[in-house]
Amino acid sequence: MFEIEYEDEKSEARAGTLTVNNRIFETPGFLPVATKADVKLISPDELQEIGASGVITNALVLFLRPGLEVVEAAGDIHKFMSWDGIVFSDSGGFQMLNSDFLVKVTEELVTFKSPFTGSILDFSPELCVEIQMRLGSDIAMVLDDCPSYGSSYDDILASTKRTLFWAKRFRDSHKNQSQEVFGIVQGGVFKDLRDNCAESLVKMDFDGYAIGGLCIGEPKDVMHEVIQKTTPLLPPQKPRYLMGVGSPEDMLKAISCGVDIFDSVFPTRNARHNTVYTKNGKVNLGKEKFNSDIGPIDEGCKCYTCSKFSLSYVNHLLREYEYFGMRLATIHNLHFLVNLMKEAREAILEGRFEGFKGEFLQNYKF
Amino acid sequence: MFEIEYEDEKSEARAGTLTVNNRIFETPGFLPVATKADVKLISPDELQEIGASGVITNALVLFLRPGLEVVEAAGDIHKFMSWDGIVFSDSGGFQMLNSDFLVKVTEELVTFKSPFTGSILDFSPELCVEIQMRLGSDIAMVLDDCPSYGSSYDDILASTKRTLFWAKRFRDSHKNQSQEVFGIVQGGVFKDLRDNCAESLVKMDFDGYAIGGLCIGEPKDVMHEVIQKTTPLLPPQKPRYLMGVGSPEDMLKAISCGVDIFDSVFPTRNARHNTVYTKNGKVNLGKEKFNSDIGPIDEGCKCYTCSKFSLSYVNHLLREYEYFGMRLATIHNLHFLVNLMKEAREAILEGRFEGFKGEFLQNYKF
Repeated sequence: MFEIEYEDEKSEARAGTLTVNNRIFETPGFLPVATKADVKLISPDELQEIGASGVITNALVLFLRPGLEVVEAAGDIHKFMSWDGIVFSDSGGFQMLNSDFLVKVTEELVTFKSPFTGSILDFSPELCVEIQMRLGSDIAMVLDDCPSYGSSYDDILASTKRTLFWAKRFRDSHKNQSQEVFGIVQGGVFKDLRDNCAESLVKMDFDGYAIGGLCIGEPKDVMHEVIQKTTPLLPPQKPRYLMGVGSPEDMLKAISCGVDIFDSVFPTRNARHNTVYTKNGKVNLGKEKFNSDIGPIDEGCKCYTCSKFSLSYVNHLLREYEYFGMRLATIHNLHFLVNLMKEAREAILEGRFEGFKGEFLQNYKF
Repeated sequence: MFEIEYEDEKSEARAGTLTVNNRIFETPGFLPVATKADVKLISPDELQEIGASGVITNALVLFLRPGLEVVEAAGDIHKFMSWDGIVFSDSGGFQMLNSDFLVKVTEELVTFKSPFTGSILDFSPELCVEIQMRLGSDIAMVLDDCPSYGSSYDDILASTKRTLFWAKRFRDSHKNQSQEVFGIVQGGVFKDLRDNCAESLVKMDFDGYAIGGLCIGEPKDVMHEVIQKTTPLLPPQKPRYLMGVGSPEDMLKAISCGVDIFDSVFPTRNARHNTVYTKNGKVNLGKEKFNSDIGPIDEGCKCYTCSKFSLSYVNHLLREYEYFGMRLATIHNLHFLVNLMKEAREAILEGRFEGFKGEFLQNYKF
């Protein structure tokens, strides 16, 4: 269930609340990525302390390892990972971009190989439904055909048709009342294909709509144009989820277009490679110049890392490749994005979102 | 200051309290290893939750990276790593066993190379004092000459002489009233050399005495004999520290001989390689047979990992090489040893230590 609490007057931004199985996710909101049933380096208690209330895991990856029986032995994905917040499950469509996984695609299904064992797997929308129902996630994402950036119009046309055909089959075979289903708009960078895909998905009546296939190599202005042109076609009373986008500036711009939900591996992956977000922009924490800086990573930040450790200490640990340094940087980055969404939400509720966004972007160098 | 609260009647075991700079370390007690100013993967808050009240860091390693000025910028080692418990600092003598560090040793000093930059460092007892004073650790360990197992009698004789010469110079140049200094008994597996080393160190009057150069390849019974023969030569009113020994059975046996303090990288390193301690012995958590076991790692264990996560979940994460799995296993292992020391202490205080030890060793397969 999605309730909109406030709609901004100067933009399409809105503040809402998504409630599934009594679990609450306030929007705009950010989902840390827990592909293998853990957010890399971070405990569920830390996620809660950070303020995260939802994560996204991956149906295909969990099906391959550890397998559904293992998750079911615990009860469901929440119990398995000891996380009682919202769990989205991504379908595996995005893994079509990864040659470690993709073998081939037909109209009927996509054939994956396991990067772990090399074994071959015919992955149909129906199997994808079964996996996500058995995982017991709160929100299932349809199996989409995610084409790579730069494909020809004809290829994207065929891919978009498959996405729609699979979405319909996914919808039809889904029978779990306690799980919501989100459709995913594809269509590459072609407006007519995105439009057609969005309109057709809306007719199938999903619980929410995602925009997929972005942030995969296309120029930023192209990405923003797709977001801007697609969101008006999605029903305003349903949640809108921009998949795989996690840079602060892109998120704020997308919120202006009416996007509610985000996920990205950026904050966690960047942290493991020394890059953190600060209100002045991204910073490489591993640089020698920080080695005696006893201030926090980001002045004024309330995260565990900034409350307790100096830039100097985190710099030392990262330069020594200590996992604890990566953990501290990850906590900071997740807190930064979760908190940015919280501040955006407050700004929307107080009718000052565009001012908030403008001020943030003025300070944030990217 | 070391106060003995209770001495066991059936063995040499004792329960005490070491207090330095108002920081309290109850004995018998275990020190997690924080060589690079962090216990691998673990936060100071987690150490506290685990029940650890002291750690041991490394003077040589911190001198090389990040450097003393960096630690001093924060104030001292406690402030740098945000840990207000006891900090022991090891001297660097143990790194003589590591060919990444050792260049050569003379009567005057040991020459190390930095494994980070290759630069050459003349490391004297006096420099080692200066480093540890500037780090601001609570307890400094003297610079010892740690010979490898299997060296000839003549080599160990020469090495033991150096250890004593260096210990005296270390003692003489140490001027920090707020830092205690522990001597380290060397002498390989030769009783007369150990005896002579212990007796000479005792004459120099240190605040505590460590037994070093064990658990480096010698047979277990030889190790236990050295411990058993050396402890009676150390003054009973001073704390006794067995360096580098961290397997539960060895620790309990050493407590019977009158040892108070232990440190070891085993619990943290083993955890990163899937091995955990349980009351029934060591277990390789990565085995497939655990993949659907929804019980905890060790039934009855009160650690964060066992309270919140299943064997199945930790097994999955470790098999996927997820750092979070290593972190959960590390928490469990540290808790196991810290808690074992706590239980041993309670048993001593209640006059039932030998019974406690016997029962533990009967269940614990090693």
